[in-house]
Amino acid sequence: MSRRAAADIPRQPSQIAILRYLRIHGPAARIDIGTQTGLSPATVTSLTADLMAQGLVQETSSAGNGGSGNGGHGATRGRPKVLLDLVASAAYVVGVKLTINLIEIALGNFKGEIERCTRHRLNTRDLDEQGLIAKLCEFIDQFVAENPELSPQGMVGIGIAVQGVADSNSGEIMWSPALRLRQIAITKPLRDRYGTNVQMSNDANCIATAITQDNSLYGNGDFAVIMLGYGIGMGLVLNGAVYNGPFGAAAEFGHTKYQTDGPLCNCGRRGCLEAYIGDYAILRDASALIDLPPEMYIANPLHPGEDQMMDLVRQARDGNEDLADLFRHAGKVLGYGIANLIALLGPERILITGSGARAYDLMEPEIQRSLHDAQVPELRRGPKIIHLPWDKDIALQGAIGQSLLRHDENMFVLPSGSTK
Amino acid sequence: MSRRAAADIPRQPSQIAILRYLRIHGPAARIDIGTQTGLSPATVTSLTADLMAQGLVQETSSAGNGGSGNGGHGATRGRPKVLLDLVASAAYVVGVKLTINLIEIALGNFKGEIERCTRHRLNTRDLDEQGLIAKLCEFIDQFVAENPELSPQGMVGIGIAVQGVADSNSGEIMWSPALRLRQIAITKPLRDRYGTNVQMSNDANCIATAITQDNSLYGNGDFAVIMLGYGIGMGLVLNGAVYNGPFGAAAEFGHTKYQTDGPLCNCGRRGCLEAYIGDYAILRDASALIDLPPEMYIANPLHPGEDQMMDLVRQARDGNEDLADLFRHAGKVLGYGIANLIALLGPERILITGSGARAYDLMEPEIQRSLHDAQVPELRRGPKIIHLPWDKDIALQGAIGQSLLRHDENMFVLPSGSTK
Repeated sequence: MSRRAAADIPRQPSQIAILRYLRIHGPAARIDIGTQTGLSPATVTSLTADLMAQGLVQETSSAGNGGSGNGGHGATRGRPKVLLDLVASAAYVVGVKLTINLIEIALGNFKGEIERCTRHRLNTRDLDEQGLIAKLCEFIDQFVAENPELSPQGMVGIGIAVQGVADSNSGEIMWSPALRLRQIAITKPLRDRYGTNVQMSNDANCIATAITQDNSLYGNGDFAVIMLGYGIGMGLVLNGAVYNGPFGAAAEFGHTKYQTDGPLCNCGRRGCLEAYIGDYAILRDASALIDLPPEMYIANPLHPGEDQMMDLVRQARDGNEDLADLFRHAGKVLGYGIANLIALLGPERILITGSGARAYDLMEPEIQRSLHDAQVPELRRGPKIIHLPWDKDIALQGAIGQSLLRHDENMFVLPSGSTK
Repeated sequence: MSRRAAADIPRQPSQIAILRYLRIHGPAARIDIGTQTGLSPATVTSLTADLMAQGLVQETSSAGNGGSGNGGHGATRGRPKVLLDLVASAAYVVGVKLTINLIEIALGNFKGEIERCTRHRLNTRDLDEQGLIAKLCEFIDQFVAENPELSPQGMVGIGIAVQGVADSNSGEIMWSPALRLRQIAITKPLRDRYGTNVQMSNDANCIATAITQDNSLYGNGDFAVIMLGYGIGMGLVLNGAVYNGPFGAAAEFGHTKYQTDGPLCNCGRRGCLEAYIGDYAILRDASALIDLPPEMYIANPLHPGEDQMMDLVRQARDGNEDLADLFRHAGKVLGYGIANLIALLGPERILITGSGARAYDLMEPEIQRSLHDAQVPELRRGPKIIHLPWDKDIALQGAIGQSLLRHDENMFVLPSGSTK
């Protein structure tokens, strides 16, 4: 298992910690790097000198207090502060995102910023394993040709975000709404083709990774991000890192049970949270309540579009109580699922996001009521539930972030002789 | 929060890793210590020399291959292997275990072995906070007086295992069947009184700690230990350490829900797993099915004794199908709970133990059936379910183990000047 193997390889954690800190926080003074990483001033000076010699880190003058542009005169104590920052061009990775009928390819720099992105619309569901790999290679080749940063040795990794259930250890897509077939191996063929490190995670885990690398979102504690949409995904961050579990596909929150003999879920089992909360479940129930225009669920019943779902939400908000009840009930079920999650793991924050959070206002009172009904009062100090609006899809950002994390580790593996 | 504070204090992880390795594995050669901890031979030599100078580690000659007693002649390559081992007398901790009507006090040495143990039977449920602390101090004082190893500066910590729900961060017992009152602070008064480090966890977490320190049980992966008995407890080990969660009381598996409006649970909510599987739940249902001798549930309905529960199991095995159905149904509910746990965390092993595992043979087929019904086929590669017989209570062992882990960390905190 790659998880265990990775843990067994001795690394130089201090260097990795410095890079990670700079990627999250942006430019920082040596003294702050020391305070935050727990390294002594002498160690920080020596390690950052090494990182600068390797072209990974550079000095940059402070923006000053209030941005004075005259060489820092007037800044506190009259001296411009020397900050260290990552060198954006030190390495580049390719980010790939696979969702139904859409493949996105992005250029991420060493700071984790997306510099460019291209989108390809195609019928993904008809692709078999070979077809999918061929398409991905075609798009990546084209992207490499258009972005000189990526050649000849510029690309240090590929990070992939996949809608659905993905095994990060084996590199297989177990199941995705984007694909008709199941269990498709994708990291190995890409690794063979490009000779670079290839990481894959489901979109919820990528979002969790992106949050841990975003100073405005990440408060350093354990958290879960629940992604509502076609299905229900979850990313778990425990002790600062995304938790994949020993089998590479943990955090299948959407397939925890609300009721033993509940409605049929897309996974083939009954009573999963997803079978009450997922877009397809809402649309299925809505079709029994109101007359939907046929193209709304016949054209693509497996994957209702955003327009279709927004129309249902609008009708619910405009006074259709039957439809509003569907969203309220989804909120109730979600609240019970969250109560189980809190009982088991007690994270500090639970972030609710994804396109399905479009109806959060309708669901929220019932989420709170379920939490009240389900939780032992003594344990109710619990986490903050936070609605994270879905205005920016950060899964691609996270795919790039996970690839850079692996690249950092690979750079600082101790020579094998030192372990013998 | 102590969890975060502990993570922020810089420590010398290599020394701690060596002590931890020796505590788990027993005597080991320097080369094996290096291989297992990822430290270079030079580093192992230097650090173990320091640890020997501090009196924590000593050299011991190998038992040889096959135990030859003639100075090692005949062992591989004709040379006795020099092994390193912890010095048992380097430090002593007091282990305390609080269960209903029983307080146990034990002497644990630096290797984590229990050297002596005394048991005090008393009516714990009538104790208030002051009364409980007074009793604990009385028993500890007496124990210290009887065990010269613990005085004057011999005792480096107290580790407490509590039946029930305990907040390891705040040091409060949230709720315990051993006490009528709730939210009782116990670590602070003991810390003030004895001037030593005091750790507390619920019994399931202590058992999980003990397993991580037992070479025959711990296979290095992530696991959950589910404790069946009066209530249902769980200890979670993620990335090698017991996971307490940010609020110090995670892993309340027994209070995840099987059914929204299910039977009343002791926690005051409805439909918790415990309300189907706990001893009190089984006895409550049994009393509706068969005529129980009144003393069996009237004398102490809150806490049926082992004899009472064994009698029910015996009748079920002897052909009382109504009673057998109770245990089968408990197995069904447990299986669904485990399926949720697998979906969320996907641990490698799930150990089922505790006095309630007395009926494991009756429950097991239904556990498996539930897992089959509830799990998405693609994720069914999942964990091994292992019945860990309840012949030896290892909670006290774990209480001592957690105290030693903290002591190791406290010894190797870096001087505060080095972080500034």
